[in-house]
Amino acid sequence: MAKDMTLLWGSGSPPCWRVMITLEEKNLKGYNQKLLSFEKMEHKSEEVMKMNPRGQLPAFKHGDKVLNESYAACLYLENQFKSQGNKLVPDCPAELAMMYQRMFEGLSLNQKMADVIYYNWKVPEGERHDSAVKRNRESLTAELKLWEGYLQKTSGGFLAGKTFSLADVCVYPSICYVFRFGLCEERYPKLASYYNSLKDRPSIKASYPPTWLENPQGQDVLKDI
Amino acid sequence: MAKDMTLLWGSGSPPCWRVMITLEEKNLKGYNQKLLSFEKMEHKSEEVMKMNPRGQLPAFKHGDKVLNESYAACLYLENQFKSQGNKLVPDCPAELAMMYQRMFEGLSLNQKMADVIYYNWKVPEGERHDSAVKRNRESLTAELKLWEGYLQKTSGGFLAGKTFSLADVCVYPSICYVFRFGLCEERYPKLASYYNSLKDRPSIKASYPPTWLENPQGQDVLKDI
Repeated sequence: MAKDMTLLWGSGSPPCWRVMITLEEKNLKGYNQKLLSFEKMEHKSEEVMKMNPRGQLPAFKHGDKVLNESYAACLYLENQFKSQGNKLVPDCPAELAMMYQRMFEGLSLNQKMADVIYYNWKVPEGERHDSAVKRNRESLTAELKLWEGYLQKTSGGFLAGKTFSLADVCVYPSICYVFRFGLCEERYPKLASYYNSLKDRPSIKASYPPTWLENPQGQDVLKDI
Repeated sequence: MAKDMTLLWGSGSPPCWRVMITLEEKNLKGYNQKLLSFEKMEHKSEEVMKMNPRGQLPAFKHGDKVLNESYAACLYLENQFKSQGNKLVPDCPAELAMMYQRMFEGLSLNQKMADVIYYNWKVPEGERHDSAVKRNRESLTAELKLWEGYLQKTSGGFLAGKTFSLADVCVYPSICYVFRFGLCEERYPKLASYYNSLKDRPSIKASYPPTWLENPQGQDVLKDI
């Protein structure tokens, strides 16, 4: 039982979801957790700011060790619970290199996705430009094509090869996100097949965003990407 | 001898510098390397694109294993050469957690620094706004204050405690960068002391940006931050 762990999280947030998938994979059950609402600005509440002065979710603690950055939390949990649950870091050097490489490329995907989906939220009204929107959409398209290509080349069905690894933990939530926001499955068949093949993985099912389950209809911001 | 490694890099780039510091720390000498010029757009050359389709530096290979993302390369090299050179990942769980946390917070520092320094380069003329410049500068100021506070609290002189770790490898180049671009040492005394204390570390000296050595006078974009 992971009674010495606390997670404050928001539904649908890829960073929060990464940590939750890792906790499931490492069989760390029964941690203290609290679902907070981004819409109600609860990520800026005193409770969060005390754990994470950046006012971001996740806010995560193991005992008195603070791991608010999702990649930090995932790497730490795998390191500290190596032999518990599923091993998320491959031994094979080629798969290990691929895992790290894809994990960190995932940050570009996440950034470019957010630049498109949250443009109006992030950019004040007087600073918005159609030219920037167009450029962001082209940049996301190029990024998604890269990933479609990566998945064409992987033989094992996972991002780093034959086993589910931290690359999948870190990138899968963003892949779900783009489809939730309307990406066309026909236009990105490899991404779609990767997306669908992992939906029923126990760690992913157990941590699936509750707001997405309540409201299965996503948005269509990305339908023409 | 690291004859099976190849690094294409640019002078001053924090991502390139991270990989070079790690190679030095792990005592990986004699790798194939080529200094390219961002100004001449050599990061978009065919030579780079073949290794890194993103057209970014560093482009790094170990044998046929590609590790173009700097964090990926650093984590991979530490993992594969654990007992060679200096150990960059602490055993103590508290220091390990701190190392991962600071490493990944370093990405925010780097982003916010780039948003200010490269604003005119990244944002097309017709899309520039004084309000955005002001917001970016405030955001960088808040970020730097966080780091000044972190360094006030560390006892060991390094970001994760008593030993030089991957947190320092990943964040130190950004700290050098902000001072190179005019940050006031008096206003950020802890950051300045950290900056100065590591300047003569062999791995950092050996990999110091050659263009900065040739032209010791930096810029003053950040002098009022």
